[in-house]
Amino acid sequence: MAHAGFATTPKPPYYAVIFTAQRTEEDRGYEAMAERMVSLALAQPGCLGAESARGADGLGITVSYWTDLSAIAAWKADAQHLVAQQLGKTRWYDHYELRIARVERAYSGPEGR
Amino acid sequence: MAHAGFATTPKPPYYAVIFTAQRTEEDRGYEAMAERMVSLALAQPGCLGAESARGADGLGITVSYWTDLSAIAAWKADAQHLVAQQLGKTRWYDHYELRIARVERAYSGPEGR
Repeated sequence: MAHAGFATTPKPPYYAVIFTAQRTEEDRGYEAMAERMVSLALAQPGCLGAESARGADGLGITVSYWTDLSAIAAWKADAQHLVAQQLGKTRWYDHYELRIARVERAYSGPEGR
Repeated sequence: MAHAGFATTPKPPYYAVIFTAQRTEEDRGYEAMAERMVSLALAQPGCLGAESARGADGLGITVSYWTDLSAIAAWKADAQHLVAQQLGKTRWYDHYELRIARVERAYSGPEGR
């Protein structure tokens, strides 16, 4: 069953890209670009889904899920994504951490609801 | 340099526990318990840090970082944490996904700010 806001991922192993970022006050075009990048990522070969949350303090976490490292590398090198990455660095993010991880186990719950 | 809200993690490899959860409307004791569990987790042997964000829609992502799988297993079995897990299942979460992943690469930015 699909749950709004959650990625429906297969049995592990697969990969996660964990992107934690603190936004600047600067907003020029951010929302539109963020939405476009999520749509574009989800349409990439090998993308399994994404989950995203941002608090009122501007700290956000987006986790995207991928079949393998080569799919992640192809998305990183996508031309439109490169433009967004550059604007993120110069305009939208005070700080970010990006981690690439291999998902080994997964659980969901609560059971029986 | 430490950045507020970010975990300061060592060079990979290490482990990430990605916990994505949709909150219920039910709030009895949630905030206090959530804060207590973060403090308790950060004090566990093998815990490297944690990052957390929750949006106005109640969807939240918490990623905690650990040295190894045995540290994660010990935290899962912690007595106070077991109580919190049970309340999470019966009271606080409509749905959650928990994924355990091995961090293989990590980057931070933006450079030069």
